Amino acid sequence: MRLRNKPWAIKLVNEHPESVLQNPDPAKKINWDKRFADFSQPLEIEVGSGKGRFITTLAAQHPERNFVAIELQTTAAGIILRTKLEKHLDNLQILRGDAADINRFFAPNSTNIIYLNFSDPWPKTRHEKRRLTYKAFLSKYQEVLTPNGHIEFKTDNSGLFAYSVKSMNNFGMHFDFVSVDLHHEKVEITQKNIETEYEQKFAAKGNPIYALYASFKAK
Amino acid sequence: MRLRNKPWAIKLVNEHPESVLQNPDPAKKINWDKRFADFSQPLEIEVGSGKGRFITTLAAQHPERNFVAIELQTTAAGIILRTKLEKHLDNLQILRGDAADINRFFAPNSTNIIYLNFSDPWPKTRHEKRRLTYKAFLSKYQEVLTPNGHIEFKTDNSGLFAYSVKSMNNFGMHFDFVSVDLHHEKVEITQKNIETEYEQKFAAKGNPIYALYASFKAK
Repeated sequence: MRLRNKPWAIKLVNEHPESVLQNPDPAKKINWDKRFADFSQPLEIEVGSGKGRFITTLAAQHPERNFVAIELQTTAAGIILRTKLEKHLDNLQILRGDAADINRFFAPNSTNIIYLNFSDPWPKTRHEKRRLTYKAFLSKYQEVLTPNGHIEFKTDNSGLFAYSVKSMNNFGMHFDFVSVDLHHEKVEITQKNIETEYEQKFAAKGNPIYALYASFKAK
Repeated sequence: MRLRNKPWAIKLVNEHPESVLQNPDPAKKINWDKRFADFSQPLEIEVGSGKGRFITTLAAQHPERNFVAIELQTTAAGIILRTKLEKHLDNLQILRGDAADINRFFAPNSTNIIYLNFSDPWPKTRHEKRRLTYKAFLSKYQEVLTPNGHIEFKTDNSGLFAYSVKSMNNFGMHFDFVSVDLHHEKVEITQKNIETEYEQKFAAKGNPIYALYASFKAK
């Protein structure tokens, strides 16, 4: 979702290079070991964090894991950063960069979970390649994830959900969890659902939330 | 769905052994070649036909294909039979038998499409094995289907849909078509959607219809 520019947010981002990596050169290795207090902790990435409710809540709940919020918009990055600073989330880093470079930003087998929350549906067929569950993206996630790692994908968009189920199936992924009504079904999930800002707004209207957790492990 | 017994339907079924096969011995080969006017036509099977709106409509639209409606309840079989007789559907046979024997009723590689429409969701975990998309059933469908054959599955039940997506994916099936809102999305399907009685009733309330078409072809 496109946010209006907020000058304070842009200023805050520019003042905190230790917390926000801005447009790093994909050709150069990022020294994540210098950016986290404890680099030995397992890593999880959210692609497209928006205002960051999801990733900051998760980071606060799990100081024993490291998190990276990938978000292109400076204003959104600034809002995430403000929460990070307020809550002293030393296990959260923010990356302003293009998700298409995810396999250059992170080392192979480095990541336990990749979260895709309410990604842009890109409904037009000619924009299929931009969808974050397009096969070229899946291939990059596979590279970055550990052998036991997985993707947690949530959306309110029926078209994007159906597309993603098909795309991940045709890619050969294993499905660990599927729901077409996450908020109203008794579902067994590995961790309590954390709602994004967008998810709260949308679910309040009574619309269904779809979820798919999938991994690349051999079937 | 359980129907009240209708004596006329039971009588009709008993009068038409040439159209309705009742509880055939799974150990004995069924001579389908003697039961269809033209046995060389491609075969399609619906598992659980209810009152038969779907399969009789399809059979009327496609005289160039053969159809078998599998339905356990005699009253339901009688209702399907009445339509078959009225519409002179020589390409439709009715089988009163247990779907668990589908791979004994039909020869390997004999069937082009298996339709699963609004199957009993069996929501309790301990009844998982009764769901028509449980892996033991999928294995039997695979046996019966031609290499290019596929399953067309529709339901209004969110739990059964999510279960089936996971079950078919993890069985290694290839997804050809997925929709979580069949009636309201612009969707590309190979043939026009024919609504079952149940589907009409349910969709009229504005509830979503889920669909999954999947095949066993190598990925």
